[in-house]
Amino acid sequence: MPIDEFGRILLCRRAIEPRVGYWTIPSGFMENGETLQQGAARECQEEALADVEIGSLLAVVDVLHAHQVHVMFRARLKVTKIGAGIESLEVRMVPAEEIPWQDIAFASTKFALQHFLEDRSADVELHHFTQIDQRGNISST
Amino acid sequence: MPIDEFGRILLCRRAIEPRVGYWTIPSGFMENGETLQQGAARECQEEALADVEIGSLLAVVDVLHAHQVHVMFRARLKVTKIGAGIESLEVRMVPAEEIPWQDIAFASTKFALQHFLEDRSADVELHHFTQIDQRGNISST
Repeated sequence: MPIDEFGRILLCRRAIEPRVGYWTIPSGFMENGETLQQGAARECQEEALADVEIGSLLAVVDVLHAHQVHVMFRARLKVTKIGAGIESLEVRMVPAEEIPWQDIAFASTKFALQHFLEDRSADVELHHFTQIDQRGNISST
Repeated sequence: MPIDEFGRILLCRRAIEPRVGYWTIPSGFMENGETLQQGAARECQEEALADVEIGSLLAVVDVLHAHQVHVMFRARLKVTKIGAGIESLEVRMVPAEEIPWQDIAFASTKFALQHFLEDRSADVELHHFTQIDQRGNISST
């Protein structure tokens, strides 16, 4: 969840399946030999040409039907420079009030965005668990 | 990291490779369709016949050479009843001062135990990241 100095959030519009055309934060599968944080930073580079500093743990989402665990971190853009990587149609720095909630690609991303904003309003940095048992169905853990 | 009402920690002596005969907390691979917490509770049942309530996140360890991420939680025994499961030679409730530090099976387990005890002394429940790049070599993240 990379933000810039104005608190805007980096979102990417997906150029690849699943959910082409929908918005997400940079994300992807880990590679062998990297940490969670390194993988998150690499995805920011690949999908949004963004150089980020990874911060605190934000969300852990068990995506049961996909046999995945999504782990999301707060992050900060080191320099205000982004661009669409090969897997993105476009990238944008989005203020909280302009988040395209109807067009967010994944329920786990929506969950992370909501908690990011809630925590920021409360001036805390917590981490949040949830599970998704079918596409879009979130239940608390 | 299951504890009982006296604050003792549940340790299992491994009956299977790797590290047969060494001590660990209940742990194992996730199964499809379960959450991290459900997997952790299942392993407590399988390896130590222990019925536990999973608590807060304790440690996340990127085990780079094994291409694994170890995620460890605090936990509490619901009933004071344990026994050796098929993958354990013996199981024991161990006070902090009797932890067999030289015979702990894995560096990630040792990392989690150390931080569990530190946090408990400070009366906090934090979570801790680290990476291990070769067997036993821990570096902070």
